[in-house]
Amino acid sequence: MKSVFAFAVAATVLAFSTSASAQFAKPEDAIKYRKSALSVMGTHFGRLGAMANGKVPFDAKVAADNADVLATMVKLPWAAFGEGTDTGDTKAKPEIWKESAKFKAASDKAQTEVAKLAAAAKTGNLDNLKAAFGPAAETCKSCHDAFRSK
Amino acid sequence: MKSVFAFAVAATVLAFSTSASAQFAKPEDAIKYRKSALSVMGTHFGRLGAMANGKVPFDAKVAADNADVLATMVKLPWAAFGEGTDTGDTKAKPEIWKESAKFKAASDKAQTEVAKLAAAAKTGNLDNLKAAFGPAAETCKSCHDAFRSK
Repeated sequence: MKSVFAFAVAATVLAFSTSASAQFAKPEDAIKYRKSALSVMGTHFGRLGAMANGKVPFDAKVAADNADVLATMVKLPWAAFGEGTDTGDTKAKPEIWKESAKFKAASDKAQTEVAKLAAAAKTGNLDNLKAAFGPAAETCKSCHDAFRSK
Repeated sequence: MKSVFAFAVAATVLAFSTSASAQFAKPEDAIKYRKSALSVMGTHFGRLGAMANGKVPFDAKVAADNADVLATMVKLPWAAFGEGTDTGDTKAKPEIWKESAKFKAASDKAQTEVAKLAAAAKTGNLDNLKAAFGPAAETCKSCHDAFRSK
């Protein structure tokens, strides 16, 4: 059993590395990409947050538009955290690669909660947006706390 | 007639400025956002290009996934070229604001051609992708030539 498990882990790591390296020619390309994707995501997340927190008036059309972008963006950064992209112009902590299962779980949870937020934002109901915003924001914060340097 | 036209232009400029300034707290936020969005767009555009140009094998699923992201990304950068975002960490040329109608036409054309490319990439047919890639790439190039410093 142990060797089957070890093989499965090795195969997963290999698949991850291969797919990541196939997608980006150089590690710095991956770093630039994930930072850009996270930055664009943060902008649209922030706009939904401003409505959820009453800082700007709720506008159903604006909420739905931001939700659409957010739902696309949240899928993007994770493939760019491949092996060999841990150094350079990045705040990524080594824990991303040392505790890769934990990082994967955190990024999966972020995707789940942000997808829920996007769906809530598209209902046209401010209460739904408010209810979904907190849990989604918490996944951003906990992932940053664990895996991003100050 | 002249004054009606002048008023319409002024109203359009005002609406653009207001919407842009409402979306970004600071000019540097807008600059960071548009650079990030264009960078992410470029990555996915490049992946379709690699298939269109035969540098990587055509994969219908990969093409469709990249097309989805591209179709979202191409809508994003333009709102971040508001008044007051012409200086700072940017290669944007003054012509963007001096010849704003020309810039608007160029960005509209890019959106149209990239939307066509995304639709073509989702057909699962490499010939469609090849046919749509060139015109889309040309809109990137002509806009960069006219409006981006080297």
